[in-house]
Amino acid sequence: MVDRQPLASWNDGTVKSAILDFVARATTPEGAEFAPPAERIAVFDNDGTLCCEQPLQIQFYFAFNRVKELAAKDPTMAERQPFKAVLEHDYNTLFGLGLQALYELAFATHAGITDEEFVDIARGWLATAKHPKVGRLFKECVYQPQIELLAYLRENGFKTYIVSAGGADFMRAFVEDAYGVPREQVIGSSVKLRFDAGGDRASLSKLSELNIFNDRERKPLSIGLHIGRRPLLAFGNSDGDLAMMRYARSGPGPRLALLLRHDDAEREAAYDREFRLSPLSEALDKAQDYGITVVSMKRDWKVVF
Amino acid sequence: MVDRQPLASWNDGTVKSAILDFVARATTPEGAEFAPPAERIAVFDNDGTLCCEQPLQIQFYFAFNRVKELAAKDPTMAERQPFKAVLEHDYNTLFGLGLQALYELAFATHAGITDEEFVDIARGWLATAKHPKVGRLFKECVYQPQIELLAYLRENGFKTYIVSAGGADFMRAFVEDAYGVPREQVIGSSVKLRFDAGGDRASLSKLSELNIFNDRERKPLSIGLHIGRRPLLAFGNSDGDLAMMRYARSGPGPRLALLLRHDDAEREAAYDREFRLSPLSEALDKAQDYGITVVSMKRDWKVVF
Repeated sequence: MVDRQPLASWNDGTVKSAILDFVARATTPEGAEFAPPAERIAVFDNDGTLCCEQPLQIQFYFAFNRVKELAAKDPTMAERQPFKAVLEHDYNTLFGLGLQALYELAFATHAGITDEEFVDIARGWLATAKHPKVGRLFKECVYQPQIELLAYLRENGFKTYIVSAGGADFMRAFVEDAYGVPREQVIGSSVKLRFDAGGDRASLSKLSELNIFNDRERKPLSIGLHIGRRPLLAFGNSDGDLAMMRYARSGPGPRLALLLRHDDAEREAAYDREFRLSPLSEALDKAQDYGITVVSMKRDWKVVF
Repeated sequence: MVDRQPLASWNDGTVKSAILDFVARATTPEGAEFAPPAERIAVFDNDGTLCCEQPLQIQFYFAFNRVKELAAKDPTMAERQPFKAVLEHDYNTLFGLGLQALYELAFATHAGITDEEFVDIARGWLATAKHPKVGRLFKECVYQPQIELLAYLRENGFKTYIVSAGGADFMRAFVEDAYGVPREQVIGSSVKLRFDAGGDRASLSKLSELNIFNDRERKPLSIGLHIGRRPLLAFGNSDGDLAMMRYARSGPGPRLALLLRHDDAEREAAYDREFRLSPLSEALDKAQDYGITVVSMKRDWKVVF
């Protein structure tokens, strides 16, 4: 089943043609590059690829709100870093504290409860919380052209996965509604879990210990562990996605690696090398060498949200 | 879509009724226990639950054959344990060497190559290798009633997963053909991977280092990591599956935990507590306490293979 007007929010041009051509090659049974449905795996980064990550990734706003809630019950938090910086909205100090401080922030706001309790808390926040810059609910700060691309791929027999450095459980709270991607097709960062079987209910508790920080080379490694098959398509927007894009791009058969460039200050944001949390530099410089197709938000998208 | 005669190879009785009743409760829209399709996750152990594991799990025969092939190129292997015991068919010595020796066997036969090369090698072996006792191709030593159960669950909107202590990549070589389960719905034991991007092809190499031994409490933990949702149904056959069965059984809504008992010496094998590699003892003793339904191969299955 192919939509008669697929990718309506994409402008005609070489990028849209490359996507349509890739899907046609993968799905034409008599074609030289036909890929059986089982091989049709497409992987997408989340922050900055499927949704807005400016000025901060959505998960930070969730964490900041959790700190506020937790500090109301435990006032000593206000005296300790990194929570002090969060409560004082002093983000320069916060991000100057280093990676370990950000892990502490993540553990305090994402662990110490079961995975099921966490998803409920995240859903509660997502139900009403609004993006300060975009002016929409956070869960609606998703890119319309990408929603169409995900749907178009699924209509053509692709299984769509999210492979992100964001927290898997946080993404699982909204990906089904926002992207039509089921929870089990989310591969993200995670803390270690503990199995508790005391009492009459067995459950999984989220611990204050890092399991996987799912960025850069960890992305293809996680794909190997979770999917066990080289994706045909990978879509990213930063150097953190380069390994995954190279992995997808370099197999036999139909291949497409796409890199979203945020070059649209008017409709969203223009940033790349200087972005503190997830810069785009090497991937942009090497895109041509590695056969990666650069997508310009300004040029290739009719609408953003 | 419900098959008119589901589970044709299952004898009528309390077990078959419990399965049919569970599926009816989960899928009846007006029912009190209706589960939306997204929540319909069913997890199955592999060895001894979906396929024969007697006298040894299929993967051991593969490993033994790999040792033979590798020793033909490197004769020094014949002088080193655990390979010496393998080449001499001295399984008492082999299994007496301890867990680390079995890991060494797994690393030598499953690592040092890419995941894609490994799946090709495993498929090549599975194409012709026959089970010494059952007398069929190994990949056909699967239980017919379970094939029907997997299909019946999928017809009713369930996503079926394999959650096994067996090697994920080995299972990925045959699960699609044997069970209709896609590779990405296999959660198993694994070695660590390395991302190699030298030359013009990026790939994943399997290393001689354990990543996860996916048994016992690790099974629900892996379900949390990979699926992020408590399964409604879990099917196992040993103490290694008890944590996963308890996890599935203890959530709200429709729940079914099934434990296969090998009590059929005539048609397959009769074993439980004494089975060296994967005993069934605590799970059998506690089945009633934990609400686990015991399936008797002899009583509940019309045919085995």
